[in-house]
Amino acid sequence: MDQLEKQVTEWAEENEGKAVRLLKRLIGEKSTYQKEFTAQAVVLEKLRQFDMAIDVWEPSVKQLKEHPYFISDREDFNESPNIVAVKKGAGGGRSLILNGHIDVVPEGNPAAWTYEPFLAVEKDGKIYGRGSTDMKGGNTALLFALEALDACGITLKGDVLFQSVVDEECGGAGTLSAVMRGYKADGALIPEPTNLKLFVKQQGSMWFRITVRGLSAHGGTRYEGVSAIEKSLHVITALKELENVRNARIKDPLYQDVPIPVPINIGTVHGGSWPSSVADRVTIEGRCGIAPNEKPEDVKEELTNWLKDLEYQDEWFKHHPVETEWFGAQWLPNDLKDGHPLISSLESSYEKIKEAKPVHEASPWGTDGGLLHHAGQTPVIVFGPGEVKAAHQANEYIEIRALIDAAKIISLFIMEWCGIAEGGEPADKGIEG
Amino acid sequence: MDQLEKQVTEWAEENEGKAVRLLKRLIGEKSTYQKEFTAQAVVLEKLRQFDMAIDVWEPSVKQLKEHPYFISDREDFNESPNIVAVKKGAGGGRSLILNGHIDVVPEGNPAAWTYEPFLAVEKDGKIYGRGSTDMKGGNTALLFALEALDACGITLKGDVLFQSVVDEECGGAGTLSAVMRGYKADGALIPEPTNLKLFVKQQGSMWFRITVRGLSAHGGTRYEGVSAIEKSLHVITALKELENVRNARIKDPLYQDVPIPVPINIGTVHGGSWPSSVADRVTIEGRCGIAPNEKPEDVKEELTNWLKDLEYQDEWFKHHPVETEWFGAQWLPNDLKDGHPLISSLESSYEKIKEAKPVHEASPWGTDGGLLHHAGQTPVIVFGPGEVKAAHQANEYIEIRALIDAAKIISLFIMEWCGIAEGGEPADKGIEG
Repeated sequence: MDQLEKQVTEWAEENEGKAVRLLKRLIGEKSTYQKEFTAQAVVLEKLRQFDMAIDVWEPSVKQLKEHPYFISDREDFNESPNIVAVKKGAGGGRSLILNGHIDVVPEGNPAAWTYEPFLAVEKDGKIYGRGSTDMKGGNTALLFALEALDACGITLKGDVLFQSVVDEECGGAGTLSAVMRGYKADGALIPEPTNLKLFVKQQGSMWFRITVRGLSAHGGTRYEGVSAIEKSLHVITALKELENVRNARIKDPLYQDVPIPVPINIGTVHGGSWPSSVADRVTIEGRCGIAPNEKPEDVKEELTNWLKDLEYQDEWFKHHPVETEWFGAQWLPNDLKDGHPLISSLESSYEKIKEAKPVHEASPWGTDGGLLHHAGQTPVIVFGPGEVKAAHQANEYIEIRALIDAAKIISLFIMEWCGIAEGGEPADKGIEG
Repeated sequence: MDQLEKQVTEWAEENEGKAVRLLKRLIGEKSTYQKEFTAQAVVLEKLRQFDMAIDVWEPSVKQLKEHPYFISDREDFNESPNIVAVKKGAGGGRSLILNGHIDVVPEGNPAAWTYEPFLAVEKDGKIYGRGSTDMKGGNTALLFALEALDACGITLKGDVLFQSVVDEECGGAGTLSAVMRGYKADGALIPEPTNLKLFVKQQGSMWFRITVRGLSAHGGTRYEGVSAIEKSLHVITALKELENVRNARIKDPLYQDVPIPVPINIGTVHGGSWPSSVADRVTIEGRCGIAPNEKPEDVKEELTNWLKDLEYQDEWFKHHPVETEWFGAQWLPNDLKDGHPLISSLESSYEKIKEAKPVHEASPWGTDGGLLHHAGQTPVIVFGPGEVKAAHQANEYIEIRALIDAAKIISLFIMEWCGIAEGGEPADKGIEG
């Protein structure tokens, strides 16, 4: 590390409390689907300290509908503003997008949580709460890295575009809207929870909705009807078999330690309207993974055809085939070329802080990286604190140590990628407390 | 048939249109759970023609809670009034309760209906609509039988208590409230859809709610979680096995033509909150039949213990046993003694109209008869128009012919059971059109 890098990382180490406080405030603002605005207010308050050009807007559904990658069925973004803050560089450096989503998934069964999910309880070096890992921890690492550079008075050559986007958990309309507004860069980093590994490939995914039909009857003579609930068991079993077939195909060594590289997750099941009636309809919703080398259209066709074959197992499906829709969310897969400078810059920053080589992996889940890459022509690397096994779960947490390490690595990475401008020395501005 | 009986049945035959119009108006008032008041207004309008003492009240939850058979969790009966109309007899005859419920189950998937479910379309001698068979057709048969007696100027010896009750589909709070208000009689007839068979035994039933636990996780790493949806498949399979075991025990010849005498119907399944999360909870609701000779408590214990044994199939259930609750609805079983005069009176009336012996059967479903019997000490027979296979289904219908036949049989039965008073001859009052 050179003198400047030392100064930045030391500042981060000494000011850890600032990062912890920011993360707690972000978790405290529950920012589930369509309700991200109060958490964005906390982001704005922090950004206003950094002398950046701030752009806040509510994405326009009308505009988004013109883009082929927009697949949401929401009607407006009234309480879901996007934020992009730009720090213009002195010139001559590479530009960088730092992208994190502010939306979180619902907390699920409250009784399963040890600590209240939006209270951000700190305990034994961890902070607990919905969104701590996915991905307010990563967002905090980005903001804390920017704060460290600002505090040390560093001027970069390239532009930095910080993005706090909505709607990632529902398919990326926030990032897509930023792309459509013209925000692109020479590279991007998304600090989703990779447990400080470099995720150079990301699995894509899509949401499906399967409707299974039955024939209603009084429960007391249930043999006069056909239970859509019983029929749905065949569908669930068939989806598990398809998952096996699809994953047996994947030979990429980056996935060798991942038990199910492209899972088919059955997330919700809803059927029937009355305890003593035979259910005439069951709706199954879930998420189907897309391998980095697959096209979404091919995967849709494969799943739809697979379920058509149910008619060979059970005559009922011949006359009442299941209906398959794709709705709500889609994350495109992403693939960063071997030897891309994003990889080498991040590796070098990682080694300076961790004194070891980083692990490369392919992520078993999608990110907004697919959109930045395919829609925004911006190469993307995914790297952040937190373990994905904590995400979307009760007792979601992040380790403070990992958050601070990530912030340090990211601050060095920003300096390396964008370059330091002449006169960007700390002495020019002094260190702010 | 004597002269009086002839007169009554001829009036019914000639005035069929009145019955059809009444039934259509009753179907037209959607009277699902907690919204029975508009249909009750139609009943009231008809009753006011008969010079009966009418009692209309909203059952009191506070009072009902004092009764051990009250199991509903509803908070009030604000839009669910009960009606009892009493025609005092001249004295010296047996009293009779005529009990029908006015509530109907929801219509289910509207797309499955050929005709709009509350439009009461008449086609080829049938009337289609939710509640036509279960049991506004039966209620219409009762009211039409009373109208025939009234039109023919007949005075009975015994009292007739007509009851239009709410909440039968949810466990009988309407009938229970009538019992608690003091309405009892020497016998009762409930015209649930027996397809004009005499149901001398009725299966009881109860509603259960089973909660299956899982462990939430991100769908992209679903192997880090445990899917409550996958675990619920074991529960559904176990319930089907228990149904087999319970029904293999039933040797009563009255059930010999019933494919499943005491079914376990799995009516609803709801689980998961997000397509790309692993579901941490599934709730299964259904209806468990109680054989006429069984005690509800024993059945509850059997089912609960059966599900405890899931731990031998899957370790997960050892540490996360399913929770079983009994909620919302319970119909007590009912058993009319061999040779009871309700049976012989109804048989004799049936034979006069149909010129054949009626079929005796045990019903595979519960009625409010269990409550009238066990709480109200009133012996009950169940007999009515319509086939139960049409109940709770799309395209529910009733045959107009069966409705009129039932009304004729019931009018003769009332005369036989209650007795005709001196001076109760038609000539006294004349026939009203």
